[in-house]
Amino acid sequence: MDRPTHLFPDWGISFALQRLSSFAGGMSDMLSVRHHEFGAPSEVLRVESLPVPEPGPGEVRVKLLAATINPSDYGMIGGSYGSLRELPAVAGREGVGAVDALGEGVDSVQTGAHVRFPDGGTWQEYACMPAEDLLLVDASVPVEQAAVSFINPPTAFCLLDKIVDLKEGDWIVQNAGNSAVGLSVIQMAKAMGLKTISQVRREELVEPLLAYGADQVVLEGSAWPKKLKELTGGAPVKLALNSIGGESAIDQIKALGDGGTQVTFGGMVADKVRFPTRFLIFNDVRLVGFWWDKFCKTEGADAVLEVMDRVYTMMREGQLKLPIEATYALPQIQEAIQHDKSPKLGKVLLRP
Amino acid sequence: MDRPTHLFPDWGISFALQRLSSFAGGMSDMLSVRHHEFGAPSEVLRVESLPVPEPGPGEVRVKLLAATINPSDYGMIGGSYGSLRELPAVAGREGVGAVDALGEGVDSVQTGAHVRFPDGGTWQEYACMPAEDLLLVDASVPVEQAAVSFINPPTAFCLLDKIVDLKEGDWIVQNAGNSAVGLSVIQMAKAMGLKTISQVRREELVEPLLAYGADQVVLEGSAWPKKLKELTGGAPVKLALNSIGGESAIDQIKALGDGGTQVTFGGMVADKVRFPTRFLIFNDVRLVGFWWDKFCKTEGADAVLEVMDRVYTMMREGQLKLPIEATYALPQIQEAIQHDKSPKLGKVLLRP
Repeated sequence: MDRPTHLFPDWGISFALQRLSSFAGGMSDMLSVRHHEFGAPSEVLRVESLPVPEPGPGEVRVKLLAATINPSDYGMIGGSYGSLRELPAVAGREGVGAVDALGEGVDSVQTGAHVRFPDGGTWQEYACMPAEDLLLVDASVPVEQAAVSFINPPTAFCLLDKIVDLKEGDWIVQNAGNSAVGLSVIQMAKAMGLKTISQVRREELVEPLLAYGADQVVLEGSAWPKKLKELTGGAPVKLALNSIGGESAIDQIKALGDGGTQVTFGGMVADKVRFPTRFLIFNDVRLVGFWWDKFCKTEGADAVLEVMDRVYTMMREGQLKLPIEATYALPQIQEAIQHDKSPKLGKVLLRP
Repeated sequence: MDRPTHLFPDWGISFALQRLSSFAGGMSDMLSVRHHEFGAPSEVLRVESLPVPEPGPGEVRVKLLAATINPSDYGMIGGSYGSLRELPAVAGREGVGAVDALGEGVDSVQTGAHVRFPDGGTWQEYACMPAEDLLLVDASVPVEQAAVSFINPPTAFCLLDKIVDLKEGDWIVQNAGNSAVGLSVIQMAKAMGLKTISQVRREELVEPLLAYGADQVVLEGSAWPKKLKELTGGAPVKLALNSIGGESAIDQIKALGDGGTQVTFGGMVADKVRFPTRFLIFNDVRLVGFWWDKFCKTEGADAVLEVMDRVYTMMREGQLKLPIEATYALPQIQEAIQHDKSPKLGKVLLRP
């Protein structure tokens, strides 16, 4: 599934020279992908040179190893996400870094330790944060997997573990089966003894998803809920995971058994649909939401660490591995986004 | 609010003669509004003459006093309701009757007692049912109020009492504020110390609803959620009651506070809308359903009697009174339905 990574293929000469002169001056400048207004990434993102920050007392500086392009980045850059950064904002929500410098009084961590990159913006080379808030990453997790471990896999785990009480052999359905959450759900469900139906939009995704352990893969728009009996052998679907909306979500609601739950955790813009009144009333279907950001805020650090521990355990034991589609340098951000928006199966990463 | 009732105004002479001859034969025939297929009431309903049933051992015969036209009748006649009758079916779901004859071995009830009309179809003059399943109606409740007491008021009570934990002073919002459920909700909420916003489609409903005790009445399509702060004085809306869908339901979802619940209990056909992904995710809004029929089946007779007791207490104490728009005889069923579908505030009743 891996494709060749693109390391700095078109980083212009003049830019490289500018960088060299920065380094000559002693780590004073770094690259940062920022936006000064909300809007389309192609219009508002700028690659800027900023001073490398120095850690204050109790802080550490983290050097970026790899950041991701996450679907929710578009909402944060565009201004539609549920929580927004103050402008000008560094873009990017997820990344892994190495502790690079310790501020005064920090002895709880050593330089070189892998940690979640400070979440004030991951599409930059360095950032500082309080040592006590660091999320340490298991050293045995490869950097590329660590980079993608902070949003989608814990979301997938919570969707399977925190919404309804599922028992071994229970069926769930999800759309965007080829997304990073989708691939995490397929692999985690398999590890947890659950059965999955994954909705996809392209025929060529069926085989790869089956290879990841999907039990059933169905095409959007194929009226698959009518064939539900064949798909599950007559077992009811207990839980539906929705990150699309529109007809895709309505198909899930049709497929849910009496008393089933649909949890929405992502909001691609989708077609208008009839409000699913009859399924709510007659089938006692419940629609709820899940937001990992809110979970982190309301459930506390211990709950988050417990979830991350489950994620890293599955990564270590080979039960969970997300494909990496390509890697770009920060200045290639527009090319990286273009790639991210094209049909693909893996994550697009950013490196310094 | 009351209008003159129409008692048998255009019951044809020939029909009256036929009836007289039936009575001459000794209670052998009765009128029944039935349908032999599912479809539009104007096409499938027939007024038929059927033998008056005799109560078997353990049964009683109930004589209709007044039946209602309920919104869900259209779904049952049309074939879209969540549970349907075998064809040919007597139409009508709600009515009050008097015990008229006792079958062998029945001593738990006396003739003349007011009871819920047997629910196999209320748009007919007589029906039998097991004495042990009778739902007795408090004798102090007027017949017209008793007739409308079995579906909408208990639904309204459950919506306020069984979905979320509301405290005195909490705000709720409902659409179809002028429906029988809507008017029940307004009056019950007032009795329970809750505050209501009622959405209506016509300006001329504002004053009557305020007169019933509504705290705020807003017009559909007026972007009222933007003025929410003015409407509630800044208090969050905890619960939304939806019997419409479409934009009306989406407005409610926009108005709900963080962690609020929308309960859908009716499904008028409404416009297509965007699936409310962002509200589910970011505002933790939950969408659930309520169906009184299911409550009756799953919660058991004691739970139902407890709800009905609350309804009759409020009716007795003058806290709950539903307006009656008009009363028609069974043979005038088409005229009654026409009237029911026109803009109005009260219930349309059917009498034998």
